[in-house]
Amino acid sequence: MMTRQVVLTSRPVGAPVAGDFAIREVDLPDLAPGEFRVRNLLLSLDPGIRQRLSQVDSYVKLIDLGSALTSTTLGLVEESRDARATVGDHVIGFHTIAERTNATWGPLTRKIDPAATGALSHHLSVLGPTGLTAYFGLLEIGRPRAGETVLVSAAAGAVGSIAAQIARIHGCRVVGIAGGAKKTARLIEEFGLDAAIDYRDKDLAALTAAIRDAVPAGVDVFFDNVGGVQLDAALDCLNPRGRVALCGLISQYNAAVPEQRFRNMFKLIAKSARIEGFVVLSYAERFPDALRELAGWIRVGRLTFREQIEEGLEAAIPGFLRLFDGTNDGKMMVRLP
Amino acid sequence: MMTRQVVLTSRPVGAPVAGDFAIREVDLPDLAPGEFRVRNLLLSLDPGIRQRLSQVDSYVKLIDLGSALTSTTLGLVEESRDARATVGDHVIGFHTIAERTNATWGPLTRKIDPAATGALSHHLSVLGPTGLTAYFGLLEIGRPRAGETVLVSAAAGAVGSIAAQIARIHGCRVVGIAGGAKKTARLIEEFGLDAAIDYRDKDLAALTAAIRDAVPAGVDVFFDNVGGVQLDAALDCLNPRGRVALCGLISQYNAAVPEQRFRNMFKLIAKSARIEGFVVLSYAERFPDALRELAGWIRVGRLTFREQIEEGLEAAIPGFLRLFDGTNDGKMMVRLP
Repeated sequence: MMTRQVVLTSRPVGAPVAGDFAIREVDLPDLAPGEFRVRNLLLSLDPGIRQRLSQVDSYVKLIDLGSALTSTTLGLVEESRDARATVGDHVIGFHTIAERTNATWGPLTRKIDPAATGALSHHLSVLGPTGLTAYFGLLEIGRPRAGETVLVSAAAGAVGSIAAQIARIHGCRVVGIAGGAKKTARLIEEFGLDAAIDYRDKDLAALTAAIRDAVPAGVDVFFDNVGGVQLDAALDCLNPRGRVALCGLISQYNAAVPEQRFRNMFKLIAKSARIEGFVVLSYAERFPDALRELAGWIRVGRLTFREQIEEGLEAAIPGFLRLFDGTNDGKMMVRLP
Repeated sequence: MMTRQVVLTSRPVGAPVAGDFAIREVDLPDLAPGEFRVRNLLLSLDPGIRQRLSQVDSYVKLIDLGSALTSTTLGLVEESRDARATVGDHVIGFHTIAERTNATWGPLTRKIDPAATGALSHHLSVLGPTGLTAYFGLLEIGRPRAGETVLVSAAAGAVGSIAAQIARIHGCRVVGIAGGAKKTARLIEEFGLDAAIDYRDKDLAALTAAIRDAVPAGVDVFFDNVGGVQLDAALDCLNPRGRVALCGLISQYNAAVPEQRFRNMFKLIAKSARIEGFVVLSYAERFPDALRELAGWIRVGRLTFREQIEEGLEAAIPGFLRLFDGTNDGKMMVRLP
């Protein structure tokens, strides 16, 4: 069985470029016991892939040069030697970025009902890892209370836009940070936030001043996808017992040495505040309840989201690169024929 | 009523020097309603004073040039126009570093029973802010469980040595970081820790390797008084759901721009870990219970501590400077005649 897959051909230094990747045709071996074959229908492209391309963190397992990239995918089981995966099942899992792949059942693998939502793609976005990350990160780590002020970075992005709206649903005042006039306008008009801040062309002092302008009463919860200057500025604006839910550090992923500078660490002491990271998989047992709640908010029009779906395996490479130049426009996915 | 006090004569750049301070004789005005006069018996010298000498953080209120320094002191009430302070009372409060001072009752002010402990000085050390900071920071922010591994920086210091021993009392394996052979030996021999690391002459990689050697199973709780490279190295060694109780950042207090660099922020995400600051005053309601427990541990010989008591107001200036060159030897205080 021949398939095409996206492989890593060189380790990016700084921002990844198209030449770091290639499409390769390979012959999939016959299934071993416990394996099943997936024909991918949708591929999720996430910033976290970047960290497995170059050695930046001893904790993250690197993708070998010449090997296929992996990410969350949604596909159809075509053949199976695992009793949990039946031919015809729709499964989500952490799989090869390819047309087809031999897979094993992992901690992220689950079956989905293709009729359960309006579109299959929702299972990789608002009703998948993206929405669940926003949901648990905001509610379990940020723990906003009604009336508090929540600041969200990358607030026009896939996770940020959902986190921001969940904060609104919970009765918070919500301010978003995004890049450029188009995205900041969208924060207000489309996602219903109370205020928006454009981080572009702002150094630490200017960004801090902009946050203070937008959030005169201070920040109770910062849902951060970005790190770097945005995190440092937010630390300066934290209220006593403020919480930073650390979801991502996309400002750092392309740095050869991801050396973040902070001037405002002391604020954590002065304000009895905390920064806490999380991995959504920790909440796996509660995914069904969370997905029900997210679906309910969508149904009644309280939760809006954007998906950007590119077509064909070749689109995976430019689609991934767009996550880092800010030209993506909603949860980035690739649909395969 | 004449008194002598320690005043700030110039704002230090980098490490403070003796010339930044002077002893000045002033005439105390008559008491206003609500004031009381304290004759100081003991002065506590703490690293936190440094942050009020130069503009490093917009949150901290600066000491005006030409004004007296303030700190926690223990003194006798000599005269009073506040019903809460009776002549002859021993009071602890946040007061002028001086022989005498006109004071008002503040959130830190409390009466103490001079007969309650072996020595008055204990009220400023193990049975005062130092011990309480260690107690609540470790137990409420670090939340160690029996069998876990606790790492403590500045572990031979006033707060660190108590935090480390409380962790031992709670059934943890405890590793301390300190500077120099004398202090690291003391961690084992005097404070009963399981292992000791000398941070001197170690860069981030070497310190990280030393922590890994001492803590092969990883760090569950890091009680940090230091920040900087020690915090960054500890982040690299955190276990899943690890906690950093951020008590102080003494490595940063003398920096003209306290810009801390971190390479390991991503560990907070990958490990679902947190850094949390605290201010001991938040736990004021529980001070009596904590002091009883601390006193109990001292009584049965489970908690050891060191005090370094210098004599006379002039000693306050060199005593304070020793907090930053590592030559202090226990909780630094000054006794006044």
